[in-house]
Amino acid sequence: MQEPSAYGTPAYNPNQPSPHSLKNKLVRVIWNFVWLALYRPSPKPLHKWRCFLLRLFGAKVGKGVHPYPSAKIWAPWNLEMDDGSCLADNTDCYCVNKIRIGKNSTVSQYSYLCGATHDYEHPLMPLVSAPIMIGDNVWITADVFIAPGVTIHDGAVVGARSSVFSDVNAWCVVAGNPAKFIKKRTLK
Amino acid sequence: MQEPSAYGTPAYNPNQPSPHSLKNKLVRVIWNFVWLALYRPSPKPLHKWRCFLLRLFGAKVGKGVHPYPSAKIWAPWNLEMDDGSCLADNTDCYCVNKIRIGKNSTVSQYSYLCGATHDYEHPLMPLVSAPIMIGDNVWITADVFIAPGVTIHDGAVVGARSSVFSDVNAWCVVAGNPAKFIKKRTLK
Amino acid sequence: MQEPSAYGTPAYNPNQPSPHSLKNKLVRVIWNFVWLALYRPSPKPLHKWRCFLLRLFGAKVGKGVHPYPSAKIWAPWNLEMDDGSCLADNTDCYCVNKIRIGKNSTVSQYSYLCGATHDYEHPLMPLVSAPIMIGDNVWITADVFIAPGVTIHDGAVVGARSSVFSDVNAWCVVAGNPAKFIKKRTLK
Repeated sequence: MQEPSAYGTPAYNPNQPSPHSLKNKLVRVIWNFVWLALYRPSPKPLHKWRCFLLRLFGAKVGKGVHPYPSAKIWAPWNLEMDDGSCLADNTDCYCVNKIRIGKNSTVSQYSYLCGATHDYEHPLMPLVSAPIMIGDNVWITADVFIAPGVTIHDGAVVGARSSVFSDVNAWCVVAGNPAKFIKKRTLK
Repeated sequence: MQEPSAYGTPAYNPNQPSPHSLKNKLVRVIWNFVWLALYRPSPKPLHKWRCFLLRLFGAKVGKGVHPYPSAKIWAPWNLEMDDGSCLADNTDCYCVNKIRIGKNSTVSQYSYLCGATHDYEHPLMPLVSAPIMIGDNVWITADVFIAPGVTIHDGAVVGARSSVFSDVNAWCVVAGNPAKFIKKRTLK
Repeated sequence: MQEPSAYGTPAYNPNQPSPHSLKNKLVRVIWNFVWLALYRPSPKPLHKWRCFLLRLFGAKVGKGVHPYPSAKIWAPWNLEMDDGSCLADNTDCYCVNKIRIGKNSTVSQYSYLCGATHDYEHPLMPLVSAPIMIGDNVWITADVFIAPGVTIHDGAVVGARSSVFSDVNAWCVVAGNPAKFIKKRTLK
C-alpha cells in the first residue's frame, strides 16, 4: 500500500466531472417530476397506469406487472420487468445499469437493488455500475440488499434481511449477511 | 424436487383470489385514510390521541402507551399494546396476524414486526401469517426485524440491526443476523 | 441476576424526567421546523444553502461539504463536517452526542449514525450517548449502522449493510453484522 496522502481525496470529489451525461441528468430530472406528480400518488390498484409511465420512459414492461406506488426507480430506461413480476412498496431500484426482474418474480418491501458502487481503490473513487439480473420465479423477500453485478437465477428465494454479494443458484434458498446457501427450494 | 415448470407461477399470482376478506380490505382503506389524515400528522406528545384512534379501530391499548406518529400499523384490530409500551417512530407493525407488545416494552425506531410471509414451497405462494408475541419489559432496539411466529419472552433485549427468526428466552440479550444469544441480561 | 420484578419498569418510563434540558428541547423544535420548511425541500444542488442552515444551528461545517436534503440531523450543534465531506440522502445522523465526519469522507444513502442507546442493565434505562468519530477519507457505504462510541479511523471503508459496534482501524475494509476485517484498502 502506498501512502494514501499522496492521492489527495479518495472520496466523491465535488470537482470531479459527473459520470452521467447531461442528457441522462436532464431526463432524470423530468422523470423525478413525473414520479412525484403522477407515479407516487397514484392509487395502489392502478398498476397499468404506472406500467404506462415506466414504458414512457423506456422501461421494458411485460403483462400483468405490479410496480407499487412507493417503489423508487432511478432510470426506467434501464429497467426490465417481465410478465407477472412485482416491485413492492418501499423498494429502491437503483438502476444506474440494467436491472432485470424476470417472469413472475417478486421484489418485496424495503428491498434495495443497488446497481452501482465506487472503486475505492482508485483515488478519485469513480462510479462503477453493473447489471442486476433476477431470473424467473424468484422471490426477493423483505429488506434484502442486492449488490451490483449479482445474478439471482430462476426460482431462488432470498430470505428476509439478507445481503447478497455473489450469484445465487437456481431453486435455492439463501439467507444472511452475506447471504449463504440454506437449502434447496422444493415445491410441494 | 419436482420440475418447477410444472407448477406455473410460484409467485404472487395476480389472478389468485386475495387472502383477505372484502370487509378486511374496506376497513383497511378507511384506516389508511384515518392514519394519513389524523394519526400521522399529530404532534409527537399527543400519544393519548393516537391511542384513541387505535382503540377506535379495535386495538387493545393499555395505559401510558406511546405509539409514535410515523409508526405504521397494518390492522389496529390485531394489535395489543399493554401498559407503558412504546412503538417508536419509523417502525412498521405488519400485523396481518395478532401482534402483542407487553407491559413496559419498547420497539425502537426502524424496527419491523413482520407478521406474514408466503409459503414458497407451494406453487401459488399463499400468504401465511403467524402471531408475534413480545412479553413484558422487552426492548427491541433500533432497526430490528422480527419474523412471523416469533415470541420474545419477558425482559429480553434484541440488539440493534438484529434479525430474529426464532424465539428469544426471557432476560437474555441476543444480536446478529440471525440473532443469537449474547449474554444474560442482569439488572444492577 | 436479581429478580427483575423488583425493579418496576425496565423500559422508557414516561414518568421519568427527560434527559434533555428544556433549552435543548426548544431549540430542537425550532430546528425541526427549519429542517421541514427550509432544509428538506431545498433542491439537491443547493448544498451551500443547507451548510448555511446547519452553521446557523451551531454545526461546524467546512468547505465543499455536501449535506443532502433528506439527511436527518438530530442536533446540528453536535455535528462537525470537515472539508469535502458528504452526508447522503436518506441518512440519519442521530447526534445526541458529538458526531464528526472527517475530510473527504462520505456517509452513503440509508446509513444510520446512532449516537445514543439506553443502559438496559439499569432499571430506569437511562439514555447513554457517546461520540461517533469518522476520520478523513472514510467511506461509510449504503445502509450501514454505526453504534454509539465508535471511531472509524482514516481511510477505512465500511461495506454495504454492515453494522459497526467497535472501532475500525485506518485503511481497512470491514463488512458484516457485526462488521469484521475483510482486507487492507490499497490504492492503485
